[in-house]
Amino acid sequence: MVVPRVTVLAGGVGGARLAHGIALAGVSPDVVVNVGDDTELHGLWISPDLDTVLYTLAGLNDEERGWGLRGETYATLTQLAALGEDTWFTLGDKDLATHIARTARLRAGAPLSEVTAQLAAALGVNARLLPVTDDRVATLVDTPSGRLAFQEYFVRRRHADAVLSVEFEGIDAARPAPGVLDAVADADVVIIAPSNPFLSVFPVLGVAGVREAVRATAARRVAVSPIVGGQAIKGPAAQILETLGHDVSALGVARLYTGLVDVMVVDDTDVALAPAIRDLGLEVVVTDTIMGGPAGRERLARQVLAVAGHALP
Amino acid sequence: MVVPRVTVLAGGVGGARLAHGIALAGVSPDVVVNVGDDTELHGLWISPDLDTVLYTLAGLNDEERGWGLRGETYATLTQLAALGEDTWFTLGDKDLATHIARTARLRAGAPLSEVTAQLAAALGVNARLLPVTDDRVATLVDTPSGRLAFQEYFVRRRHADAVLSVEFEGIDAARPAPGVLDAVADADVVIIAPSNPFLSVFPVLGVAGVREAVRATAARRVAVSPIVGGQAIKGPAAQILETLGHDVSALGVARLYTGLVDVMVVDDTDVALAPAIRDLGLEVVVTDTIMGGPAGRERLARQVLAVAGHALP
Repeated sequence: MVVPRVTVLAGGVGGARLAHGIALAGVSPDVVVNVGDDTELHGLWISPDLDTVLYTLAGLNDEERGWGLRGETYATLTQLAALGEDTWFTLGDKDLATHIARTARLRAGAPLSEVTAQLAAALGVNARLLPVTDDRVATLVDTPSGRLAFQEYFVRRRHADAVLSVEFEGIDAARPAPGVLDAVADADVVIIAPSNPFLSVFPVLGVAGVREAVRATAARRVAVSPIVGGQAIKGPAAQILETLGHDVSALGVARLYTGLVDVMVVDDTDVALAPAIRDLGLEVVVTDTIMGGPAGRERLARQVLAVAGHALP
Repeated sequence: MVVPRVTVLAGGVGGARLAHGIALAGVSPDVVVNVGDDTELHGLWISPDLDTVLYTLAGLNDEERGWGLRGETYATLTQLAALGEDTWFTLGDKDLATHIARTARLRAGAPLSEVTAQLAAALGVNARLLPVTDDRVATLVDTPSGRLAFQEYFVRRRHADAVLSVEFEGIDAARPAPGVLDAVADADVVIIAPSNPFLSVFPVLGVAGVREAVRATAARRVAVSPIVGGQAIKGPAAQILETLGHDVSALGVARLYTGLVDVMVVDDTDVALAPAIRDLGLEVVVTDTIMGGPAGRERLARQVLAVAGHALP
């Protein structure tokens, strides 16, 4: 069997789990990851989506929380609070090592893509992790309380604010990181992970050339709906679809991806939406899309690859 | 009783313990601290002498090791090693909080003196901690193996190399931090702590105006010998005195401080050196200079202040 070249466009948890499933199925994917949620705290550069993908693929992630490392301690954060630092963003001791090493290497002049590759290699990750850009893109969220930096909205205020619009500051000037466009162009399968379309996928597609590469690739393009039975599996995707006037459903998501994907994978729960999605010109595959642990994510990954015509033995 | 104004010129452990003794005796000292041992590791700005003084005065120091915080854990350092960082310099999780907060504030534009004051206030320190300068001074050590950065010599190579000469890079351009010269000029007592003359005291005295301020102050000036019975209480002071051609004794130290101090405090062990030190024009007080724990350092502090004419009740 020829191993297919698989590229996943990913945000945090959903993308991390599906990419992990692909790796567990024996295929080393390229994972193009959102950086719009990156932030600087305590002078450290933090890339939460990249880290979620990194830790999940390394098998070191905290499965219960969905983010961070397993078995964390918080000695540094506790002491940072004692020193008068504002510690609303939880940073474990082991996790801090990632941020310290990344920040030091970035300040020494290495681009984020190079640092990411080093970290992935050090943790034995069987995948190529690509930040979508080495340039700074900052997701900003407009809410009734004003414009919020992403982590201010997402973590500090627990995504409780209604999202009126989303802007990606710096995206017009951002160039794709080395390897990103080729990863899309040369793939056999491009997967849009079950990540938040507005907060995770659009800041990936919005970097110069990425959306065009997805449109133009000869790969089979498959999106997995992050909305199941009208709910987001995790996070605020459902609320955002609603406040922005979209259908809070796999159909609403499918409309956002029209022209970008060939196949929409929706959950069994949403079987009734299949005809309407097909009417958009998309193929529809109905399956159990809830990944849970490693077995579930490998099962879904195999199914997605089979859908794309690359069934694994 | 009028509380005397006391200024201590300090390196690490010896200065920290004597300053702590003064604070325990009820006098809040100004402590002017060496920064020549500062270093950047993993992109973090580390000020070992300042931190030893800070932690000791806060009562948080590890008494057994003499440096660092009590009850440390090493989760971040272990993970930094896993990520390919060179971790020869031990950094505890709580200690890292100091370096992270300091580095963030320095990068945001605050001078080291301001950051140091913030950290001391946050940890409830009853003393004014003053880095001798906000500018960069780097102690460099010439050895038979070549020139070494200070922590390379001191920690990585465990001060095993013979010291042929010591240079303080940047010291000619360094300006004293706000408050330093006044702390010397306005003091009732100036104490040169039992720190390494070459590695701790000279890089303090060498900053523009500090040596002159010590010469000119109306304060009683007392030095405590870091050499007891021909040995350093801690660190490489004895070897350095020897390779640089000085007497490895309290007398050798007294010669280095001639013109800068009025009184030399030497250990009971060294009573035989008193006449020769007096011949230098210095008063000599012979006492038990080994500080050990808090009781010992308060005892020595009270004695030094009494020697200077400021006996506490």
